[in-house]
Amino acid sequence: MANHYKFECLNVSVSPEGVAHVEISRPQALNAFNTKTWTEIGQCFTQFKTDGDVRSVVLSAAGRMFTAGLDLKEAMTGALGKPHDADADVARKGYYHRLFILDFQSAISAVESCDKPVVAVVQGGCLGIGIDLISACDVRIATEDAYFMVKEVDIGMAADVGTLQRLPKIVGNDSWVREVCYTARKIQPQEAHSVGLVSSVYATTADAMRAAFDMARTIAAKSPVAVVSTKHLLNYSRDHSVREGLEYTAIWNSLAHNSHDMAAAIMASLKKQPAQFPKL
Amino acid sequence: MANHYKFECLNVSVSPEGVAHVEISRPQALNAFNTKTWTEIGQCFTQFKTDGDVRSVVLSAAGRMFTAGLDLKEAMTGALGKPHDADADVARKGYYHRLFILDFQSAISAVESCDKPVVAVVQGGCLGIGIDLISACDVRIATEDAYFMVKEVDIGMAADVGTLQRLPKIVGNDSWVREVCYTARKIQPQEAHSVGLVSSVYATTADAMRAAFDMARTIAAKSPVAVVSTKHLLNYSRDHSVREGLEYTAIWNSLAHNSHDMAAAIMASLKKQPAQFPKL
Amino acid sequence: MANHYKFECLNVSVSPEGVAHVEISRPQALNAFNTKTWTEIGQCFTQFKTDGDVRSVVLSAAGRMFTAGLDLKEAMTGALGKPHDADADVARKGYYHRLFILDFQSAISAVESCDKPVVAVVQGGCLGIGIDLISACDVRIATEDAYFMVKEVDIGMAADVGTLQRLPKIVGNDSWVREVCYTARKIQPQEAHSVGLVSSVYATTADAMRAAFDMARTIAAKSPVAVVSTKHLLNYSRDHSVREGLEYTAIWNSLAHNSHDMAAAIMASLKKQPAQFPKL
Amino acid sequence: MANHYKFECLNVSVSPEGVAHVEISRPQALNAFNTKTWTEIGQCFTQFKTDGDVRSVVLSAAGRMFTAGLDLKEAMTGALGKPHDADADVARKGYYHRLFILDFQSAISAVESCDKPVVAVVQGGCLGIGIDLISACDVRIATEDAYFMVKEVDIGMAADVGTLQRLPKIVGNDSWVREVCYTARKIQPQEAHSVGLVSSVYATTADAMRAAFDMARTIAAKSPVAVVSTKHLLNYSRDHSVREGLEYTAIWNSLAHNSHDMAAAIMASLKKQPAQFPKL
Amino acid sequence: MANHYKFECLNVSVSPEGVAHVEISRPQALNAFNTKTWTEIGQCFTQFKTDGDVRSVVLSAAGRMFTAGLDLKEAMTGALGKPHDADADVARKGYYHRLFILDFQSAISAVESCDKPVVAVVQGGCLGIGIDLISACDVRIATEDAYFMVKEVDIGMAADVGTLQRLPKIVGNDSWVREVCYTARKIQPQEAHSVGLVSSVYATTADAMRAAFDMARTIAAKSPVAVVSTKHLLNYSRDHSVREGLEYTAIWNSLAHNSHDMAAAIMASLKKQPAQFPKL
Amino acid sequence: MANHYKFECLNVSVSPEGVAHVEISRPQALNAFNTKTWTEIGQCFTQFKTDGDVRSVVLSAAGRMFTAGLDLKEAMTGALGKPHDADADVARKGYYHRLFILDFQSAISAVESCDKPVVAVVQGGCLGIGIDLISACDVRIATEDAYFMVKEVDIGMAADVGTLQRLPKIVGNDSWVREVCYTARKIQPQEAHSVGLVSSVYATTADAMRAAFDMARTIAAKSPVAVVSTKHLLNYSRDHSVREGLEYTAIWNSLAHNSHDMAAAIMASLKKQPAQFPKL
Repeated sequence: MANHYKFECLNVSVSPEGVAHVEISRPQALNAFNTKTWTEIGQCFTQFKTDGDVRSVVLSAAGRMFTAGLDLKEAMTGALGKPHDADADVARKGYYHRLFILDFQSAISAVESCDKPVVAVVQGGCLGIGIDLISACDVRIATEDAYFMVKEVDIGMAADVGTLQRLPKIVGNDSWVREVCYTARKIQPQEAHSVGLVSSVYATTADAMRAAFDMARTIAAKSPVAVVSTKHLLNYSRDHSVREGLEYTAIWNSLAHNSHDMAAAIMASLKKQPAQFPKL
Repeated sequence: MANHYKFECLNVSVSPEGVAHVEISRPQALNAFNTKTWTEIGQCFTQFKTDGDVRSVVLSAAGRMFTAGLDLKEAMTGALGKPHDADADVARKGYYHRLFILDFQSAISAVESCDKPVVAVVQGGCLGIGIDLISACDVRIATEDAYFMVKEVDIGMAADVGTLQRLPKIVGNDSWVREVCYTARKIQPQEAHSVGLVSSVYATTADAMRAAFDMARTIAAKSPVAVVSTKHLLNYSRDHSVREGLEYTAIWNSLAHNSHDMAAAIMASLKKQPAQFPKL
Repeated sequence: MANHYKFECLNVSVSPEGVAHVEISRPQALNAFNTKTWTEIGQCFTQFKTDGDVRSVVLSAAGRMFTAGLDLKEAMTGALGKPHDADADVARKGYYHRLFILDFQSAISAVESCDKPVVAVVQGGCLGIGIDLISACDVRIATEDAYFMVKEVDIGMAADVGTLQRLPKIVGNDSWVREVCYTARKIQPQEAHSVGLVSSVYATTADAMRAAFDMARTIAAKSPVAVVSTKHLLNYSRDHSVREGLEYTAIWNSLAHNSHDMAAAIMASLKKQPAQFPKL
Repeated sequence: MANHYKFECLNVSVSPEGVAHVEISRPQALNAFNTKTWTEIGQCFTQFKTDGDVRSVVLSAAGRMFTAGLDLKEAMTGALGKPHDADADVARKGYYHRLFILDFQSAISAVESCDKPVVAVVQGGCLGIGIDLISACDVRIATEDAYFMVKEVDIGMAADVGTLQRLPKIVGNDSWVREVCYTARKIQPQEAHSVGLVSSVYATTADAMRAAFDMARTIAAKSPVAVVSTKHLLNYSRDHSVREGLEYTAIWNSLAHNSHDMAAAIMASLKKQPAQFPKL
Repeated sequence: MANHYKFECLNVSVSPEGVAHVEISRPQALNAFNTKTWTEIGQCFTQFKTDGDVRSVVLSAAGRMFTAGLDLKEAMTGALGKPHDADADVARKGYYHRLFILDFQSAISAVESCDKPVVAVVQGGCLGIGIDLISACDVRIATEDAYFMVKEVDIGMAADVGTLQRLPKIVGNDSWVREVCYTARKIQPQEAHSVGLVSSVYATTADAMRAAFDMARTIAAKSPVAVVSTKHLLNYSRDHSVREGLEYTAIWNSLAHNSHDMAAAIMASLKKQPAQFPKL
Repeated sequence: MANHYKFECLNVSVSPEGVAHVEISRPQALNAFNTKTWTEIGQCFTQFKTDGDVRSVVLSAAGRMFTAGLDLKEAMTGALGKPHDADADVARKGYYHRLFILDFQSAISAVESCDKPVVAVVQGGCLGIGIDLISACDVRIATEDAYFMVKEVDIGMAADVGTLQRLPKIVGNDSWVREVCYTARKIQPQEAHSVGLVSSVYATTADAMRAAFDMARTIAAKSPVAVVSTKHLLNYSRDHSVREGLEYTAIWNSLAHNSHDMAAAIMASLKKQPAQFPKL
């Protein structure tokens, strides 16, 4: 299988079982997010959406920490949005800056909208934009040396690429969410585990990676119609009333239930044998 | 009190205090859900809505497991929706199949929309549609031999009668929710307890049933206006913004506060005596 | 700094660092909420919104309990809404009573809409309206003698000033939320902690107050633009889809990113020095 | 074709082309709506939804006027909702009365949710509930002796089975809508035509009926998949943002485009020949 | 009846029948809107909401034009929001300016939220904020010398106190709405009539006033419960789906139907006699 | 000014005043929409969004008709979405087909989301996708030989790229909208004018083009901040409640009001002189 995923800041590979591995790889810069990095994340996960060979994804980062957050040196050059002139009319600057933020958000949201489940593995620090990113993943696991900081408030801004939208909806403890968003304090992995930010904590990165790939392979072996539908419907339902979620599900499944997978899976289930499912 | 609740797959009784007991009873089929079963659940809880004699409900299942999930044998006969012809135009099949799913959803949602609090007791396995059903209940308790599986992905489909809508809103750990929905893995009762899927775990079914009835009787002794209003408003507010929830509550209570119950309850509270409340 | 905050039922002070302290002070009545009390809470937090000297808030209560709940004696005089005549047309009574509830709700919601983070400290009992109030705060901490009761059902009504809207969204355990709302049972501080109703439990009120002020001072030292934006966007995002939350954030930050605070904070961060931020 | 539509207050027939005719028939009572009438309307249109033999509908009324509105004599007996006791607790009465209104609304909304286009023909007076009913239809035509009154305000109530929801969305003149809702004044057919309440005005009932059946037959000859989808999507889109409407349409058509009808219709269109479409 | 409505920029009187007349009265400044003017409009209509003596309202303006729009001289002094310093941090200025806009919007929206129908009479020019204001009224009538301009784009801004929200929802011609909003061109009264911006056009101001008061008196003679409910529900329904509008209406009317007005009105209707309704 | 707009199916030019002209140019195929055509429309209008040189747009089509609709020959080759295999699993085909429709919709919606006002000129026939396209424009004008057909139902499908979402919101006559969507009948230009589908009808194409460019030039001479804000806010407000529209407008204008344009425009207005506004 040729690798159609060539990036500068990401290492991407896809296993024969359909598990893609995305490794953020700017370890020399502590995986700080420059524009290149998030642009490539957007491109990579958008490509996953229509790549039937990809059935589930493991997202990790190279080096001693997951990410130091936004690349502050690039941010200071102000290459954000269009009018580079510091004296430019603020409404004009703001208009283009808004479009810039929307692009940034869209890249991170591609992780969510790719419809393939994504398991994130966090080792070392995961700061600022790192929280925005893992909040857009499906499952999060960490190593014992991991720590987390909703760092944006410390650079004078409100997080704007997903943390404030998604973190409160993935962790059922609003008192905790607000405290860590207002104070930017360090969160230890056990604390992250106890509030549900991560599903499990492993002693070493190797252990965590092994667990992540095990889970991803398990998912990749299921019917891709069932898996993709489940992720899509979970995301839709999070953002709608139960009633609207049910109605959207009904129309979605009136199509999906015509898949051969369902009969194959039921038959396999009745015979207590494994089933094979063609790619999406 | 005559029993107006005669069903094939359910045993239903109502106590003088106003506690209804609904027991799913197809133990020989491990309480697998055929069309009859969920149709009767819909009918039963719809009837509860206008039955003033019912103030709270305990829902349990007979035999060694809560439910094995969807009745796969019936499902394989394809009696889902209208055109029975396998060669039928897919748009026509889909149109009727969507109506079928909406009916199924509506039956399960009757548990939620009946406005009387429902306490579910889970013993043994609770698979697939079982999760959809208990997610529509108010309080869930389990026995030590209980286990849970969001099984749908293993029959090649996305859960479509409530799990994907309600489970993430009753459990504040999205990483966990997604993992169990994508992998269909077995969930032990203590794990279910720790994420909040169940409120408590009891050694035996007898203990769990006793606890459920205690809670249901406590609720049944309160003002039914207050209890029914509380359930109704919790459900409305889950699906709306805080502001819309408050405004709906204001108009609801501008009526409900005219009830005699409120004065009676305040008086009893000031006198530190129990109050009696007429049925709804 | 002159104190512009003179109230009958509240003691209010603002520290030089920008931490306001609001103390509910009707200890002789166990801080029961009469109309005066909630009216003043509304006025006080509304004033905070446009007071640049206030950057964060600690909310506590004087005496041996946080609050006994609604002032039942006042409630029994029926001074709720306009037509005092018991025989008045129920639609007319209801119209004005609805406006009364909306006013009450609005006062409590001022805690949320003031845009400055609020840390609540609960000692002793916190009943009924007390739960509505602390649910509108950002962070909740308690002492070991604290206990909580969603008491409204025991006075024959559904909670109508915020508990049913906010509690399920701050605690990720719906089975627990519904149980305590239907039964009005006593909740111990450790239980409140384990479900996430409170972030931490301290041995004494003094310890809890110290922790609250530490947190509030930490927040007050951050950029007020960043902090206020974070609270505002968390509230907006709770009530909207992720997509709508992101879009609102983009337009909000296209303005906020023009603040001097961001450059100052980034520079300080790069130099590893503390930054000073002017008041809002 | 046997007639499965036997009602007391309605005459219903279905033509071989698939045009159903529903005639409200209580001329001796000026077609005043008693409970029987609207209950049957709900039943009839619900049945149409799953009856493939029905492709479009003409709705008219027998006698000299379309309807005099609500049957006031029945209304005065107060048979609305459950507790018949005038002294019943107002919250209890209100609870059941709300369910009664929801049932009434649901019956009228069945005209909208049946998914088959409905052409209403109005002759003589169309008062009160008559406006609610025709607002739930797709196309409205009138005779020159027709007149309309949003009469509810004159019986001391706000219209509650659809007029206030639908009328402002079918007529693009809010100043006019509000005037006629507040004053209950008589609307002449030409005025109804000029604001778009009706699409056309005919000299005689016979002319209007002929025009209605012509339109209904034209619709019945189209692909029922296309027609039903169009009505369903128009209704969904009215109640959602353009973006949500488009997304729902995409999932709907990803199923519907698999229909044989589309290829048949395109082929017929390219060959400039008529196509035949099997029933839904 | 004492006049509780004393304002600087408004003349307000209330007739014995319950018709309030609000006259904007800064004719020397062509009724240009300074802060005082819109603040008083907010106060006046907020007071109407709880004043049972007011059942309907006529809104007009003194002098030769309805309003020249925003008072540009005041606007140029920049007294908008808090930090008066031109060099103030733009995020801080923006924060307070947003609160200023919200206050302005809230004043204009009071016309809508007062629940009493408002008939606007426009003579001479109605520019900028004038359109925002009349769009918040229920019924609009004009004189032959009236003209309208959505003027904001000509002062370099998008209309922000209601025109862009309400105008497209009161006029069913989006092509026209957008043209006049982008070009700020003059709209003649007949054109305003033909698109439905105004309900009728009268030769003289006296004629228009007479028509407005006739309509207002007609409305004031109806059951105030029915009228207020109708306005409230029309506004709610405009902003919600048909389904949500119906459900809100059901709970609203489950209260309102307990009013004595309904029985009185039905009885009067059956006896063909006028009914008298006590004030709200 | 170099022309950055090179397309195969479109001729695009931008005047020095900032008026872009987009001409659909496949006259030999009656401007039937193949994939290339709509893809380029999406690209062109997306580019307009960030091109400050473009302030308003005129959209027209070359040859004797605006468009014959979808290119049926291309459609019959089935190049819609991914799996080209007719035997492919219907759920898999549907998944990719849905993404295909979303892409198509997104291209048409670019006309709306480009934030620059678009005036469409229709001559000759405007069928099917042509209606979807002009419904996404701001202002529509036609020639006397124009005619319109919502043609989709005649090719066996529901319109899915915007007509069913936007047409009912731009034309305030639902009875008419539904009739033309169900019957696909021919609409004459005067009829289109009377329902508000087009703003005006001109004798010749030359006249219509002249009127369109006059309007576009008028718009291009206004502050681009004001114009872009107005279009953006009209679109946002169409899809939200009045309250949400107002709140979004407040945050938007708290930025936009910092523009130099506002002061320049007010000054020019007070001096009664024209103002010049720099490009966005």
